[in-house]
Amino acid sequence: MILQLALDRMDIAEAVRLTKEVEDFIDWIEVGTSLIKEFGMKSVKELKQAFPDKRIVADMKTMDNARYEFEMAFEAGADVATVMGVSPLVTMDACMEVASRMDKTVMIDLMNAQEDQVRKLLTYREAVFCVHVSKDEQEAWGAKHSGEKKEWQFFDPFVQWAIAGGITAASLAHLRKTSNPSIVIVGSAITKAKNPAKAANELKQVIQKGE
Amino acid sequence: MILQLALDRMDIAEAVRLTKEVEDFIDWIEVGTSLIKEFGMKSVKELKQAFPDKRIVADMKTMDNARYEFEMAFEAGADVATVMGVSPLVTMDACMEVASRMDKTVMIDLMNAQEDQVRKLLTYREAVFCVHVSKDEQEAWGAKHSGEKKEWQFFDPFVQWAIAGGITAASLAHLRKTSNPSIVIVGSAITKAKNPAKAANELKQVIQKGE
Repeated sequence: MILQLALDRMDIAEAVRLTKEVEDFIDWIEVGTSLIKEFGMKSVKELKQAFPDKRIVADMKTMDNARYEFEMAFEAGADVATVMGVSPLVTMDACMEVASRMDKTVMIDLMNAQEDQVRKLLTYREAVFCVHVSKDEQEAWGAKHSGEKKEWQFFDPFVQWAIAGGITAASLAHLRKTSNPSIVIVGSAITKAKNPAKAANELKQVIQKGE
Repeated sequence: MILQLALDRMDIAEAVRLTKEVEDFIDWIEVGTSLIKEFGMKSVKELKQAFPDKRIVADMKTMDNARYEFEMAFEAGADVATVMGVSPLVTMDACMEVASRMDKTVMIDLMNAQEDQVRKLLTYREAVFCVHVSKDEQEAWGAKHSGEKKEWQFFDPFVQWAIAGGITAASLAHLRKTSNPSIVIVGSAITKAKNPAKAANELKQVIQKGE
């Protein structure tokens, strides 16, 4: 299981500083949508420069203009870029084409996608799917990944998928036993921890030992 | 009818230069998603500084983290910011709350929203609705606003709404006679014209005289 650190609501220097503290425990680095919209591709470039050996995920949340946005993200140094599953399928096609041509990866964010949309998206077998309870939903409902959203029931064993949304060491231990995603995306449980390295290490231990 | 110039796929200096050429003919200036993701809030700030008397629309295409993203856009100088209609409704609530508190405007982009979603969104009566054939859909299908998408059939006469997606002087003349939106959003018919000022003037003439 891959541990992806999501960096949001901070400046680029803080993102680099925080990632250096935890880099031994995390695998992929996500440049969050808030950094991209606040600082542009500079955020992706600087994280890649600071961590050239890590996979960088640009959380573009693309809805349209996919060729332009995905080329921009990959040229800035991203290895993975995200597109919204609620986008038109032609947008998904464009993302897949760019990623294939540039030897990069598409992550399809299933936030708010309906069941019929999810089923159509499963034809994009080279993509990584992200099951996602959004931040706004978490705040409004207190919804976490305790089982109320189960898009993974549609996935076959060959689908690569990620899970995101308020995940902690406790919920990760549960997830590891039940749905066992390929990638787990953690933001504030690391970035808002008093001791981010300790928090990241605990998550890594859960992944490695299941406790 | 308001003419909104959409600026995409160019750098900030080019956006300012191009807008100066056409500013007498256009009303609102949209800082496109591609500028925001490439250059961050600098793009919104610099367009507002260059055109302090125009309304600036930040095409944020927010899907989540709405309070943070909308405060960021409005603090950078935007008067209007966009949220995707396919987002969770709690995201819409957050956008409306921020806009109301900061005396700004929410534009809800209906791209790829299903009929049941559009009907639910119509309760946000302070918002401007944007009927939108995406760039990727236009490229894939040649789809323009010739009537194949008619979200405006759900709107009552008090709803403020915009239309976007491959609009030209010819299609605008047709739209003006038929659906008559409050705002028409034009990008490449101006920005890619050999003579952008002439193209913008023609669109303005259609709006004013219907020809």
